[in-house]
Amino acid sequence: MLNIQNARIAVIGLGYVGLPLACTFADKFPVIGYDVNTTKSRQLAAGHVSASIYGEEALQRALNCGQLKIAADISETATCNVYVIAVPTPADTNHHADPSLLLTACGMVGKLISKGDVVVVESTIAPGMTERLLIPRLEEASALKCNRDFTVGYSPERINPGDQEHTVKKICKIVSGSTPETADFLEQLYGAVITAGTYKATSISVAEASKMMENSQRDALIAFINEMQQVCTAMDIDIKEVMKAAATKWDYIPMHPGLVGGHCIPVDPYYLIDEAARYHVPTPMLSTARKVNNGMATWYAERIREAATRRGGNKVLLLGFAFKPDCEDVRNTLVADVFRELCRWGFSVTVYDPLVNAHRVQDIYHINVENRVPPLDDYAVVAECTPHTCFHDLEQCPAVQSRLVKLY
Amino acid sequence: MLNIQNARIAVIGLGYVGLPLACTFADKFPVIGYDVNTTKSRQLAAGHVSASIYGEEALQRALNCGQLKIAADISETATCNVYVIAVPTPADTNHHADPSLLLTACGMVGKLISKGDVVVVESTIAPGMTERLLIPRLEEASALKCNRDFTVGYSPERINPGDQEHTVKKICKIVSGSTPETADFLEQLYGAVITAGTYKATSISVAEASKMMENSQRDALIAFINEMQQVCTAMDIDIKEVMKAAATKWDYIPMHPGLVGGHCIPVDPYYLIDEAARYHVPTPMLSTARKVNNGMATWYAERIREAATRRGGNKVLLLGFAFKPDCEDVRNTLVADVFRELCRWGFSVTVYDPLVNAHRVQDIYHINVENRVPPLDDYAVVAECTPHTCFHDLEQCPAVQSRLVKLY
Repeated sequence: MLNIQNARIAVIGLGYVGLPLACTFADKFPVIGYDVNTTKSRQLAAGHVSASIYGEEALQRALNCGQLKIAADISETATCNVYVIAVPTPADTNHHADPSLLLTACGMVGKLISKGDVVVVESTIAPGMTERLLIPRLEEASALKCNRDFTVGYSPERINPGDQEHTVKKICKIVSGSTPETADFLEQLYGAVITAGTYKATSISVAEASKMMENSQRDALIAFINEMQQVCTAMDIDIKEVMKAAATKWDYIPMHPGLVGGHCIPVDPYYLIDEAARYHVPTPMLSTARKVNNGMATWYAERIREAATRRGGNKVLLLGFAFKPDCEDVRNTLVADVFRELCRWGFSVTVYDPLVNAHRVQDIYHINVENRVPPLDDYAVVAECTPHTCFHDLEQCPAVQSRLVKLY
Repeated sequence: MLNIQNARIAVIGLGYVGLPLACTFADKFPVIGYDVNTTKSRQLAAGHVSASIYGEEALQRALNCGQLKIAADISETATCNVYVIAVPTPADTNHHADPSLLLTACGMVGKLISKGDVVVVESTIAPGMTERLLIPRLEEASALKCNRDFTVGYSPERINPGDQEHTVKKICKIVSGSTPETADFLEQLYGAVITAGTYKATSISVAEASKMMENSQRDALIAFINEMQQVCTAMDIDIKEVMKAAATKWDYIPMHPGLVGGHCIPVDPYYLIDEAARYHVPTPMLSTARKVNNGMATWYAERIREAATRRGGNKVLLLGFAFKPDCEDVRNTLVADVFRELCRWGFSVTVYDPLVNAHRVQDIYHINVENRVPPLDDYAVVAECTPHTCFHDLEQCPAVQSRLVKLY
């Protein structure tokens, strides 16, 4: 019988979603966390997190009170009866859904579950994928039958990396289950630790679809304002002034133009586009939004080229490499595309970002990022790609002001 | 010198924008209203308005206290020194901006203005159109020079037809001027009667662009949720449940799918699309949103056809013809397209809408609308196209319930 009194939770995947969730569950339940990256696991077991956003303090508290254990091997979670899977669901280089990490995790978890267990997926996927892909994988690996021997839940993560306000406990948590009892159980389980409360969706596919809709809507809203920026710039109208004026209407949604990077907004719509295609439903709004937002890197590069050409110079300094301000995260950053376009056009490009890990950027993108301000006099153009707060002061200095291209 | 103490205001165009504005200005200033439709003018002069949304009481109050006069001929406004133009700016049948009514109004006003006068445009237009089209027309007709002899302002109307909450006085009013003095003057003039306050835009083009951005964003948001409805329906997921779940996230914007009609949302984006094309800027988000929203009529018709085919019947009853709920307005209603598609496929279609003027619908669309409920037993399918409140009770009756197709 499902009862939160006896819940022993395994969290599979200890990234920006799994780790804070594991720490949060540890407030009330015994938790074992597992990550396939053994270096990371060792660091976590020692109370260290590589990125500040995860909350080192919360990790140490959970470890010290003995409620959280970091497993070196996934077999250590075999005593658990609730498995929460929080692994990334990226897109491949052709912009198609790549749920292979999630399927691997399901295969691993499937080997560990026993009768009565619950498997909860937090990873973002398209509606229908839990039933179509994940349950068969769990059944295959476990030789058990879903809804007879074990049950499944879906509770989409809503973490906003770098957001200090909307932390896991403060975000309403959607829960759903393959049986009504599982949905009720998960509502109690998450409800015990999430202070913002839970919302029980009527089915797993509704919960899956809601996450798709949230992030795809955001992508569309940003694509819209990016398109407006292109139009206004061509017409020599300051988009910021237009945004201020429009914001005085009660139903206008204030949005900022910018480069859409990261692991969520520029990825999730591809899951929905692919799944809709299986049903032969065209998704022109989703596809257009993705194209417009991806195209902003070239548009930025063109603005920089124009400015450099006007000033007769060849050397460009880009400020910022992270995908969002005040964040060290470089996943899917479009600044890499801005960089590559400018290089392709023959510019000599330097990137300065004091927040990102330069070694990591070198490994992933083969791009050299400076963590210290380079000599500014060298450059024809300075362009801010990521509006880190730390650039505010820099932009006040006359050497930058005279070279600055405001991209947004 | 511009001084609101001496302002004598002419309002050109007494539709859903001009009439409430004229009545509002009459609280503090002498106002003469003019409309090219002489039948309407006579009715208004007698204190009668054809549509309830205009506020007959406010009109009668303004007329009775002598502050508002309805002119039979535009020459009666020659003594005025502020001309507010509030005429429609529709799109033509090929979805291109058709500012001819506005240009005609500028030609008429141009003949009446004298030195020191101010011409304010409230009609929705694309950024740059005041300067590119309207000022030349005013100069030509008046043989006066803008910013030397007269000045121009732009203050976009933000009226939401049928909305009892956001009435003209309660909506923040954007003002802008061809000179800083004109912008200041208009801020005082509108500020004297608009209790929600004013917002002074930095230029006329910023004010023009802000209106475009507000309504085009709304079109895009509705297109997005319409696309989601198509996807969810194909996947057999209840979009309403998905909407409820998504609405529990702090940054999700709740929107309803539906047929986008009327004189604003499905028209304004074409002005921006056309103007952007002049600058060779592609606008895929704007164009896709328009296509998706226009395509919803066919999608609805297909859902109705499916249901009728399942039930083996040929007779269809459509509930609602107005473009929005609880409103008698039929301008650009997509229910006409739903009707035509179904007729084209050989269905016998009846439309029931107790709110619309059946004669007007016959004149514009050559479609017969019933103002009384037809015998329900006749129909294979009943489909609600406009969610008027008055349909709630009707839908509870068993004869409707057994035939109802829920389109959203």
